[in-house]
Amino acid sequence: MSRLDEFILRMQAQRACIDEAAERMQARSGAVLEVGLGNGRTYDHVRFRFPQRAIYVFDREVAAHPDCVPPPALLRLGDFRSSVPAFAQEALGPAVFIHADVGSANRAASARLAADLAPSWLQILAPGAYLACDQSIVLDGLERLALPGGLVADNYHFYRRAA
Amino acid sequence: MSRLDEFILRMQAQRACIDEAAERMQARSGAVLEVGLGNGRTYDHVRFRFPQRAIYVFDREVAAHPDCVPPPALLRLGDFRSSVPAFAQEALGPAVFIHADVGSANRAASARLAADLAPSWLQILAPGAYLACDQSIVLDGLERLALPGGLVADNYHFYRRAA
Repeated sequence: MSRLDEFILRMQAQRACIDEAAERMQARSGAVLEVGLGNGRTYDHVRFRFPQRAIYVFDREVAAHPDCVPPPALLRLGDFRSSVPAFAQEALGPAVFIHADVGSANRAASARLAADLAPSWLQILAPGAYLACDQSIVLDGLERLALPGGLVADNYHFYRRAA
Repeated sequence: MSRLDEFILRMQAQRACIDEAAERMQARSGAVLEVGLGNGRTYDHVRFRFPQRAIYVFDREVAAHPDCVPPPALLRLGDFRSSVPAFAQEALGPAVFIHADVGSANRAASARLAADLAPSWLQILAPGAYLACDQSIVLDGLERLALPGGLVADNYHFYRRAA
């Protein structure tokens, strides 16, 4: 596989996880988290699939396409290691879905960051709610799921908080 | 369609054009051009599909992933408006395929750049050879083709130089 092949597969897996979580959580109320806004491409898909929901957006700064800048009240800027635990303390009610793209070019640092954030995901998610992440996470209470749609990728990961 | 949907479709169209051109030009000799290296993801796919070919790479500077940095002898750095016409004068023999991603956030400027470069593509390509481009081009001698694999996208374009 070329890097282009891997990239397309990762994007497809990401989209499939978002679509699947949106469908499964349709009947339940709760917010959504987009962690890692970047240029806003995935955020655009998340808000398309989760209309009428508060979508809280986390990043160090806003560098998104002008059409994809979140409302200021839903932005949580700063280092994920501060902003995510702080959000968990805000007690805004359990979330139905978290999409977290936290990886950088440094693989080891990305894995450490994902491991450090994982306990916050458990606090934030409702029982039975979903997490899609670009990093692999092993944590009691977070159940690893197969990717939706029969996709097989080792660069994208889908989880459900135990009920 | 979300911006993520559009992006996935564009990547799929890009890959399909590269794969199709590689297959159709298998029996003919000639170089390949990758115009717009970026992070090198597509270059990685091009060299995977066109092994044993000289792949000339054009960009303003090299900002690619370390695994995807082209050999210096095949790099043509600088503004496309200078480097591409200069290459056309090098007379290295006709090319079998050009992949040109020349778009920026400025749509009008991207279209102008693509139009300015198009006559050079005609000079560089062998008769019957292929061009895949992120910009739409209208030029006598460059025949627009349907995207391979039944893909329908208005953000990627496939051409053949008239024989």
